[in-house]
Amino acid sequence: MALTVGMLGYRFMGQAHSNALARLPMFFPDAPDVVRHTLVGRDEEALADAADRFGFEHTATDWKDVVDEVDVFYNLGPNHLHADPSIAALEAGTHVFCEKPLAPTLEEAERMRDAAADASGVAGCAFNYRFIPAIQYAKNLIDDGVIGEIRHVDGRYMQDWLADPDAPWAWRMDKDLAGSGALGDLGAHTVDLARFLVGEQAGDIAEVSGSLRTFVEERPVPGEDEMRPVTVDDAYTAEAAFENGAMGTFEASRVATGHKNDHTIRIHGSKGSLEFSLERINELKLLREGNRGYETILVTDEDDPYVENWWPPGHVLGWEHTFVHENYEFLSAADSGSEFHPSFEDAYEVQQVLDAIERSDQNGERIALD
Amino acid sequence: MALTVGMLGYRFMGQAHSNALARLPMFFPDAPDVVRHTLVGRDEEALADAADRFGFEHTATDWKDVVDEVDVFYNLGPNHLHADPSIAALEAGTHVFCEKPLAPTLEEAERMRDAAADASGVAGCAFNYRFIPAIQYAKNLIDDGVIGEIRHVDGRYMQDWLADPDAPWAWRMDKDLAGSGALGDLGAHTVDLARFLVGEQAGDIAEVSGSLRTFVEERPVPGEDEMRPVTVDDAYTAEAAFENGAMGTFEASRVATGHKNDHTIRIHGSKGSLEFSLERINELKLLREGNRGYETILVTDEDDPYVENWWPPGHVLGWEHTFVHENYEFLSAADSGSEFHPSFEDAYEVQQVLDAIERSDQNGERIALD
Amino acid sequence: MALTVGMLGYRFMGQAHSNALARLPMFFPDAPDVVRHTLVGRDEEALADAADRFGFEHTATDWKDVVDEVDVFYNLGPNHLHADPSIAALEAGTHVFCEKPLAPTLEEAERMRDAAADASGVAGCAFNYRFIPAIQYAKNLIDDGVIGEIRHVDGRYMQDWLADPDAPWAWRMDKDLAGSGALGDLGAHTVDLARFLVGEQAGDIAEVSGSLRTFVEERPVPGEDEMRPVTVDDAYTAEAAFENGAMGTFEASRVATGHKNDHTIRIHGSKGSLEFSLERINELKLLREGNRGYETILVTDEDDPYVENWWPPGHVLGWEHTFVHENYEFLSAADSGSEFHPSFEDAYEVQQVLDAIERSDQNGERIALD
Amino acid sequence: MALTVGMLGYRFMGQAHSNALARLPMFFPDAPDVVRHTLVGRDEEALADAADRFGFEHTATDWKDVVDEVDVFYNLGPNHLHADPSIAALEAGTHVFCEKPLAPTLEEAERMRDAAADASGVAGCAFNYRFIPAIQYAKNLIDDGVIGEIRHVDGRYMQDWLADPDAPWAWRMDKDLAGSGALGDLGAHTVDLARFLVGEQAGDIAEVSGSLRTFVEERPVPGEDEMRPVTVDDAYTAEAAFENGAMGTFEASRVATGHKNDHTIRIHGSKGSLEFSLERINELKLLREGNRGYETILVTDEDDPYVENWWPPGHVLGWEHTFVHENYEFLSAADSGSEFHPSFEDAYEVQQVLDAIERSDQNGERIALD
Repeated sequence: MALTVGMLGYRFMGQAHSNALARLPMFFPDAPDVVRHTLVGRDEEALADAADRFGFEHTATDWKDVVDEVDVFYNLGPNHLHADPSIAALEAGTHVFCEKPLAPTLEEAERMRDAAADASGVAGCAFNYRFIPAIQYAKNLIDDGVIGEIRHVDGRYMQDWLADPDAPWAWRMDKDLAGSGALGDLGAHTVDLARFLVGEQAGDIAEVSGSLRTFVEERPVPGEDEMRPVTVDDAYTAEAAFENGAMGTFEASRVATGHKNDHTIRIHGSKGSLEFSLERINELKLLREGNRGYETILVTDEDDPYVENWWPPGHVLGWEHTFVHENYEFLSAADSGSEFHPSFEDAYEVQQVLDAIERSDQNGERIALD
Repeated sequence: MALTVGMLGYRFMGQAHSNALARLPMFFPDAPDVVRHTLVGRDEEALADAADRFGFEHTATDWKDVVDEVDVFYNLGPNHLHADPSIAALEAGTHVFCEKPLAPTLEEAERMRDAAADASGVAGCAFNYRFIPAIQYAKNLIDDGVIGEIRHVDGRYMQDWLADPDAPWAWRMDKDLAGSGALGDLGAHTVDLARFLVGEQAGDIAEVSGSLRTFVEERPVPGEDEMRPVTVDDAYTAEAAFENGAMGTFEASRVATGHKNDHTIRIHGSKGSLEFSLERINELKLLREGNRGYETILVTDEDDPYVENWWPPGHVLGWEHTFVHENYEFLSAADSGSEFHPSFEDAYEVQQVLDAIERSDQNGERIALD
Repeated sequence: MALTVGMLGYRFMGQAHSNALARLPMFFPDAPDVVRHTLVGRDEEALADAADRFGFEHTATDWKDVVDEVDVFYNLGPNHLHADPSIAALEAGTHVFCEKPLAPTLEEAERMRDAAADASGVAGCAFNYRFIPAIQYAKNLIDDGVIGEIRHVDGRYMQDWLADPDAPWAWRMDKDLAGSGALGDLGAHTVDLARFLVGEQAGDIAEVSGSLRTFVEERPVPGEDEMRPVTVDDAYTAEAAFENGAMGTFEASRVATGHKNDHTIRIHGSKGSLEFSLERINELKLLREGNRGYETILVTDEDDPYVENWWPPGHVLGWEHTFVHENYEFLSAADSGSEFHPSFEDAYEVQQVLDAIERSDQNGERIALD
Repeated sequence: MALTVGMLGYRFMGQAHSNALARLPMFFPDAPDVVRHTLVGRDEEALADAADRFGFEHTATDWKDVVDEVDVFYNLGPNHLHADPSIAALEAGTHVFCEKPLAPTLEEAERMRDAAADASGVAGCAFNYRFIPAIQYAKNLIDDGVIGEIRHVDGRYMQDWLADPDAPWAWRMDKDLAGSGALGDLGAHTVDLARFLVGEQAGDIAEVSGSLRTFVEERPVPGEDEMRPVTVDDAYTAEAAFENGAMGTFEASRVATGHKNDHTIRIHGSKGSLEFSLERINELKLLREGNRGYETILVTDEDDPYVENWWPPGHVLGWEHTFVHENYEFLSAADSGSEFHPSFEDAYEVQQVLDAIERSDQNGERIALD
């Protein structure tokens, strides 16, 4: 029996996930069958058009009508809409796949985590970058001890779409709707990736300090003759200590002129080092014991994670393939009732780190995490 | 009315084109509607399985039954099967999209070109690399005079899948089936790309000299206790002169250890320079007048060719997207009856260059092209 | 009249400065004449040998005999020997060129700064990286407003000579002799460079938080059957806020496996960005308004800073040339009695930042600088 | 007893070699003692000034007065002055170090080679790039079989100082004075380096074809109201076959916009690959068996060739250090009477290849070398 999917959100993320669902049968033939059942949104006309393009059979304007009618609920709405619909779906026994960050506040994230803990369905958070072949390959190397004991974890996520002070206002710049700015939008990815890559070797993040900054205080509202205040950060920086003593530095910016989607993570261990950059998504730089320099590896060989399902070596993948991989894993878990990571618990722990960074920004103190 | 497609070939290229057809509606909504009608192959079981995954309604084991029953015929068979089915389809008034190189010999390519000239349908050759956003962007820059008068055109296409002498024999190593080796398989791409990029500025390739080499003379046949001779080149090199005096160097290898799919093209003009590498398909290096060094440009902005149809800036595309773009262009041309390039005529002219390189290899002389 | 030089220290730094002095006449003919007068050290035999190779006329084993006998005193001793000899020299009216960091403690740095303020001679601190052509070029670009208002300043100085726990103990690992570890040795360079590059645009560093870590607690003493404790940091991280609101992240490590001398600094402004890496000392990456990507600029043109004195474009310089440039500038200032930067005051302000980072590490709080 | 040096030429190469001689005692203490005895040139005033800066004791305006009065004769004059003074010096029993290319014509090169064969002194040609640490390291790797059997050797030497048609005329653009243009000036380096690196594994260059091109036919004479014809090539391309069947492509240009001194050599073997670029003189890219990608190696470790004499790991060297190394080797050979390579015989064989490329350009045929 095919899994029926209800999906809240039909813009950027709606298209990314719909595309992933559409591509599974041809490339991941052992994925569960999926029916794109109902697309949920407010603007009926735009919604109907999107449903047509994304291959959904039905539309609905109220998520309450959908969450208990489908097998899987995709919550791709803005951050302030993550908690209630996801919790309602989980309470209805529906599997939930929610976009990141889990919630705009730690309190909401906690409610979501608790709901997931009590639920029969699988609850996953869509940190798609875990599912990049190069990242999975890096994770395997780290777990195999190739780079030894972890000492440094540095992650920077640099974009420049807000470098221009005339770039228009959007919901992502409003604290009530988004929770935070670069921190929650970009930093959440970095923290999740850091935890994923080194968590088993270096332990949890035990302490952080951090700073947030808003460089442009207000922005024009598109189509209106009005400026609206920016109430979230344009950029954050943070220092972290892992349980094993490893040091971390994290940073993200929406005003890093010249960088479109540059999520770079560097890890130094006692025996080797790794570096990954999202704009070169097919590559991993690896320094291994006995070598003299970083290898630049094209992670597109047949035995690289997920690659066998796609094309021959050297025929590179793109950003959207991460969604196919995460949907494959999530739906397989939902179908078989097995665990999926990143879970709501994982995403809650990311949120704890983000929350501590915000508190540190405010009180100027290093914050210990439980 | 939707265009019906018949497709010969259901392996690598079959999947690449089927995937492209499947993705058009979501991302290129103004593309003509297409029905994946009949998939053609010899092994009925494998064919049925492929048809199921690729979304074809029917299968057939003889292309003769198909070429006049569909609107568009995709010829994705091995090179020695390019001529006859394509010509039959064209004679039946069917549009033909044929994989590269156009044919194993110049004679067959000539027959195909002539058939296309006489046909009512559109005949296109699937040189997909023309449809990379970075390449189209480069072409626009060259046409706009940004790099001035063309002086150097260097193209290298390096792979290493035959570096190991124990790599198995395949049809691509047989002169009768493939025509040539690295020259036809990889060099055809380079020559087409060079002609596409600089043809209008530098004119045709007027002279070439070249060399071919086979480093491993025989290879094991998979599943058999037998060695079979390699009758094509593992690598070629060539020098070229364009009509305007620009110099070219071309090279390809299947034994370039460490290179998976490294098609690099560099162009130097009197005012600037360009460099592109396929393994970093989203990037273009550009030296423009007034600047001091090459810019590394991520060609993923909204106004870059084809990008608006996909994702926001910095969300990189992969190799397979080139097939979506070329199918979009080819099917749009077929639907509207407009011209499509690269045409069979274009592909024939590529074949002339390849043929001259082979002749130069044999007689040791520089060859003038008409 | 030639300036007579007395030099304390005859190892790595002694050779670097002696070489610089030796090369000035051929490449900077307008530099003041210099006599390498007296080399100072404790081991008479090694000292005599070094004096011979470095071109010094005399040797001395007590700096007290030298500081008032020469025109210029070079203090290249270990950090704990920076204060007293430098102050004595300044009090004797001798010009002083002292290696970085200025002193192991803020208190000693303060004494040195005060002595310099009262002195008739020129007091300079040898932060040689200010004198890299690419850095001077970057500074000019920033001052000309090419990258706009400064928003991010990130500096990382990564080495790996202590990644191996069996790497031997040395004075640089002892708090009493060195003051601090990676922080003072490497971080001092980063802080000085950040202040140099953006100080006029972004103002002083107003706040910092920081962390220090020692990964390997003790190390073998060379030639002895003994382990000695490491009492300084192997690595530090810090966050900084500049007066104008720009954010900084700084980091250094001696255990960053795979990095030999990788001092990388990245600056993002409202209109452009810059990146420099010491291992590619001849290059600058520059993103300027109107361009789409970073240019990789080889800063070896005739009109680049200091380059005219050396070789034609593209004939790259090395690390040691920074010493020639700084000696040229320092000696010219000493000879003419003009100002030299980085002065002891500059170096003291660097030391304030380092001191605040250490205090933040200890008390877990963000520290405001005066 | 110190070796006395007479040096013809006091501009670019004069300074490079004088600097090398001046630096030997401090960094290569076992080098023979050298006295910079007599500097030879035509313009007495400029010569006196240069002698002063370069540290020569005497000057002379006629090389005939010098070649038999010194122990070592450095021939750094323009190419048409290479033969006669060098031969005279050799006949006088003087050691000769001559700049590259050996001579403007093969005939002159042959005379020089024959004179060297009959001479008691050592005759060396100053192909300085053999003495780059990264190149020597690469040579050792190749000789140790690290990259296996050689299959591809590609060398490109790209400069852009003549891209501008208004760049002034100079002796290097005159066939009588220079012999050839990019071919002799740049291509000679490439051919020498290729022979040095792979000669023992791949054998000699057995066949070549080639093309030369002059893009700008005449250029303004500095200080005169006159255009003078350019009678040499601005660029050349060539294909080569080595004795073992390896394929080579060579290219050089003085009009490669954006490239200052980009001499890049790539070698692919059956087990690995190498890449070197002169603008990143401290780096070597190495693909070795068992690795997945090219390592980027900073060739500055203590046990790398010549590095122990300089600075600690990561403290990069520059272009001029190659002259120190080659002078060290040449003078040591002269002093001890041992062999030095590249010898005049080596340089003659390079000239044979260049000559064959020119002949191939003219007759359009592949040329077999003896």
